[in-house]
Amino acid sequence: MKKELEHYFDRLWSINRSLTGNGNRETLKILSEIIDLKISEVPCGTQCYDWTVPPEWNVNEAWIKDSKGNVIVDFSINNLHLLGYSEPFKGKLKYEELKTHIYTLPKQPELIPYLTSYYKRRWGFCMSHKQFISLDEEETYEVFIDSSLDDNGSMTIGEAIINSSAEKEVLFSTYVCHPSLANNELSGPLVSAFIYSKLKETKGLGYKYRFVFVPETIGSIYLLSQKGEYFKNNLAAGFVITCVGDSGEFTYKKSRRGNALPDRVTETVLRQTEDNFNIVDFFPSGSDERQYCSPGFNLPVGSLMRTMYGKYPEYHTSGDNKNFISFEAIEKSVEKYLEIIEVIEKNEKYINTMPYCEPQLGKRGLYPTLGSQVGTQDIVNTMMWILNLSDGTNDLISVSERSKIPIRNLIPVVDRLMENGIIKKQ
Amino acid sequence: MKKELEHYFDRLWSINRSLTGNGNRETLKILSEIIDLKISEVPCGTQCYDWTVPPEWNVNEAWIKDSKGNVIVDFSINNLHLLGYSEPFKGKLKYEELKTHIYTLPKQPELIPYLTSYYKRRWGFCMSHKQFISLDEEETYEVFIDSSLDDNGSMTIGEAIINSSAEKEVLFSTYVCHPSLANNELSGPLVSAFIYSKLKETKGLGYKYRFVFVPETIGSIYLLSQKGEYFKNNLAAGFVITCVGDSGEFTYKKSRRGNALPDRVTETVLRQTEDNFNIVDFFPSGSDERQYCSPGFNLPVGSLMRTMYGKYPEYHTSGDNKNFISFEAIEKSVEKYLEIIEVIEKNEKYINTMPYCEPQLGKRGLYPTLGSQVGTQDIVNTMMWILNLSDGTNDLISVSERSKIPIRNLIPVVDRLMENGIIKKQ
Amino acid sequence: MKKELEHYFDRLWSINRSLTGNGNRETLKILSEIIDLKISEVPCGTQCYDWTVPPEWNVNEAWIKDSKGNVIVDFSINNLHLLGYSEPFKGKLKYEELKTHIYTLPKQPELIPYLTSYYKRRWGFCMSHKQFISLDEEETYEVFIDSSLDDNGSMTIGEAIINSSAEKEVLFSTYVCHPSLANNELSGPLVSAFIYSKLKETKGLGYKYRFVFVPETIGSIYLLSQKGEYFKNNLAAGFVITCVGDSGEFTYKKSRRGNALPDRVTETVLRQTEDNFNIVDFFPSGSDERQYCSPGFNLPVGSLMRTMYGKYPEYHTSGDNKNFISFEAIEKSVEKYLEIIEVIEKNEKYINTMPYCEPQLGKRGLYPTLGSQVGTQDIVNTMMWILNLSDGTNDLISVSERSKIPIRNLIPVVDRLMENGIIKKQ
Repeated sequence: MKKELEHYFDRLWSINRSLTGNGNRETLKILSEIIDLKISEVPCGTQCYDWTVPPEWNVNEAWIKDSKGNVIVDFSINNLHLLGYSEPFKGKLKYEELKTHIYTLPKQPELIPYLTSYYKRRWGFCMSHKQFISLDEEETYEVFIDSSLDDNGSMTIGEAIINSSAEKEVLFSTYVCHPSLANNELSGPLVSAFIYSKLKETKGLGYKYRFVFVPETIGSIYLLSQKGEYFKNNLAAGFVITCVGDSGEFTYKKSRRGNALPDRVTETVLRQTEDNFNIVDFFPSGSDERQYCSPGFNLPVGSLMRTMYGKYPEYHTSGDNKNFISFEAIEKSVEKYLEIIEVIEKNEKYINTMPYCEPQLGKRGLYPTLGSQVGTQDIVNTMMWILNLSDGTNDLISVSERSKIPIRNLIPVVDRLMENGIIKKQ
Repeated sequence: MKKELEHYFDRLWSINRSLTGNGNRETLKILSEIIDLKISEVPCGTQCYDWTVPPEWNVNEAWIKDSKGNVIVDFSINNLHLLGYSEPFKGKLKYEELKTHIYTLPKQPELIPYLTSYYKRRWGFCMSHKQFISLDEEETYEVFIDSSLDDNGSMTIGEAIINSSAEKEVLFSTYVCHPSLANNELSGPLVSAFIYSKLKETKGLGYKYRFVFVPETIGSIYLLSQKGEYFKNNLAAGFVITCVGDSGEFTYKKSRRGNALPDRVTETVLRQTEDNFNIVDFFPSGSDERQYCSPGFNLPVGSLMRTMYGKYPEYHTSGDNKNFISFEAIEKSVEKYLEIIEVIEKNEKYINTMPYCEPQLGKRGLYPTLGSQVGTQDIVNTMMWILNLSDGTNDLISVSERSKIPIRNLIPVVDRLMENGIIKKQ
Repeated sequence: MKKELEHYFDRLWSINRSLTGNGNRETLKILSEIIDLKISEVPCGTQCYDWTVPPEWNVNEAWIKDSKGNVIVDFSINNLHLLGYSEPFKGKLKYEELKTHIYTLPKQPELIPYLTSYYKRRWGFCMSHKQFISLDEEETYEVFIDSSLDDNGSMTIGEAIINSSAEKEVLFSTYVCHPSLANNELSGPLVSAFIYSKLKETKGLGYKYRFVFVPETIGSIYLLSQKGEYFKNNLAAGFVITCVGDSGEFTYKKSRRGNALPDRVTETVLRQTEDNFNIVDFFPSGSDERQYCSPGFNLPVGSLMRTMYGKYPEYHTSGDNKNFISFEAIEKSVEKYLEIIEVIEKNEKYINTMPYCEPQLGKRGLYPTLGSQVGTQDIVNTMMWILNLSDGTNDLISVSERSKIPIRNLIPVVDRLMENGIIKKQ
């Protein structure tokens, strides 16, 4: 999987993504090679709750040159150089005037910051602080931004569903509005697409699986304006997939509810499979979980990340690049999500069909016939726990918690007891 | 405030207070200069639940002299010398007989104990153990107690109310039955009176504030016999104000309920403003919270003290005097109660009027228009927490607990969001 | 009591007990000298839930001899030598064939294991591994098992009830199916019988007390098939009495409910009377609590043991013999169960008949008349706690937990307040 991941990463890397624009269309088209995306266009100006879809932004060319024609910065070299949603501009400016349009990171002088101005019209350039202080203060600069902000354009979103006969669904939400940033956020779209490609072959799924690729904030707000009420009734679990590409420990940010299905499953999986990991309570900043967990929806949506947004110095800078991430880590992120899905699928409440005293397991070939042999009690221990707790109040996570038996050890025994008809699904 | 506190302390110090009597009348009259007390008289013999208001006790003169006329102890020098509610007596007694009427503290030989015999008729004197062992065992002593116990007298109580349009009220209860004892209990009446004088100017209060000055036990029992059923329906929070004059850390004794409004507010305020403090679970000995928290009432009444009654060696002795207390500490006690009142006033459950996704704060001038700038997320963090949790289930204390943002930082942001109509009171 | 315990132990030690058979009859007959057992016979083949009472097993003689007639093992020397429920056999076998019928403990080479094959027909012998490896591999052995498995026999059980006017009952369940094993399980039947003999003299008991002596598993399953529905309505607390004979610390295994009456009482008693003890959450292996706590019944049944089954190396071996146990420990086990019974009897919810403010204890002679004397507050502290918490929601265990006053100090004060009519039973 690693080679494939790198292949797609390389193809997607230099595309200029934003809330809207052709870069987003191209990104979704490439991802469609992995995941069966239905791509749709939402007209600019569409109202969703308190928000409006902004004009479509596209950029042909953008640069600063000095009076001798030397290129200072050029959008075609690194799309982070242009302030996101910069309006068109053409002119010659003295240093003093130009510098009010320049954004840098004085504390990280080698790095270009990532900045946007979606809802207030501006233009600007981002550069390393090192370059900024080397500019000639006596110079007059030529600025050219050939961008467009089109009220008649649209916002592009992608969606794929793995269908099943189930009513309830599981949501994976990731965002495609970041330009050349690797962990945040090419890792999320890549992980989402590969989860889909691994999961789609599975037969007999107990949930529908929905994958959405939207621009952050406005995209999930649009989605909720369309599906929010439906999600309230039908969403069993959801995950915002972001920052899953670096080599750091897994970090799970809980849903606002704190003990919803994704929270219980993910905590159990991490606890039982990882030595080191972080569980973080919900907080109302971050990514699209802010919208999914707004008080009017309060959906069961958490986020399994690696190093969380804002917690690594390269965050929202040109340092978040291919060197910062690891394709091995991205692959493991896909696998961890698949483990979570497996537990979601198996996490039923079971019913012991013979709840009065123990069933006689021996006559069913499930118990050693030679009684009282020291040690043999352990062999049937797992069976006993499942039978004892299968009263319709405990799901498999509860059984795992109370018995301290890892859920992956419970699953095959559940299957065997199901086959024997000693337990059934509630 | 410190000078004023000392002025009133000095005027009140030497007055002989008890369950009843002219000393109590004089005390309440002096306090009326600070707080608009309505003073009333409850006839002796009045029945309240299992109790009866005792006869009114007054003392003109009380002393012991030796056969040479030397004064051994004199009530006019220190009113602790006379056992509280001593009946009148005049006579000459041998040492052996006298000593059955003398109370001392052998383990604190320098200090005079504070003792009373309200409900059994006795007479007695208290003195330092040092003085007691210096008495001449061969001597015959002259004893004179010119006291009266009048069944036709009355018990004097004071009450002041800061009115508002609110139905619910907050109670401050303190007691005026202790003679020359400083921390326990001139500090409580002084703090209560000064809270009143600071609070009465406040406009638009959300609660009524009731201040009662009663003798301990029989006074609060009488009050409950009159107002107990009303308090059950209308008391939002109450505090017994006692032992608030020494320089020790604050100690909060919870109400019997344990998580009532005064408990939650006081714990939050102490946690967020003090480095060191004590929280003590309710226990059914102590002061008037015993009555307010008796099982038939179970009112939301706690007690914010400094060093708790019984926890300092000077407690109920002549060592609890002006040297033991600090007017700076008393002033800070007043201020801490005022901080608590401020939180009680602000601790509403708010409702986010735009609960579906986030409101677009930017277009309301509440959000930086330049997105993705590292650090700016923190600026709106408080707003986001309030918006996310304002679903009608969380009061401001809950918001503070979950967000870990001090309540005093929440209050101005709540005000701003209220002005913008983005939240409203439930 | 120790002498008596040893006397009965010695008489019961060498009897061959199993699920069924004359050894069980003889055991119950001897125990009837201590406890008024009603002994009944359940026909073999009786169906109870998923189980069937097995044939009655009796053994006359069983041994292995070598070709020279030397006895290798003999059931009459130690009944552990014969695999429980061995079918009859007579024949000569080569070593290679014989050894498939020999069971040993290679890791405990000095000890004979205890093994059974109740539900699959087999024959076999148990011996020390040391003896096993000394057998001559060239030898031909003579094997003789004169046993019978009679489908027309019966399973013998014993039951005794201490009656009272109460509807609710307390169950003590122990098992009589182990041959010569001391801690597990002659200690349980002995302790049960002696609890009965101590308790039966008590007047005015607030519960019925039922003592059952059954073979493990099939016996309790039979009992539940008869009484399970009755127990659901009427069982207040139950205890499986097993492994109560060694000198180890007490271990309490909670009921499946975890906070049922036996759990709360036993935890309180252990916490307040023992320095070292273990509390173990319910788990669905072990002894007859597996059946009582099966999900269809979920009865309030725990088990107070000393060193738990499986937790000592002598468990289920010939090492669990008279040397392993202590009659002093057995006596203390009886006493600890009697302490638990005392708390069960006293653990009422009381009602303060004067719940509005405090009753005036002084006029009832329950309070020192000399007020404010340092130290005297402690004298009435226990009374105050009981009065304050006697609101019908707290039983005596709750009062003990909240007040931190040991329950044995509460009991005499409860009695005194009951006499004065200040509290009453709910």
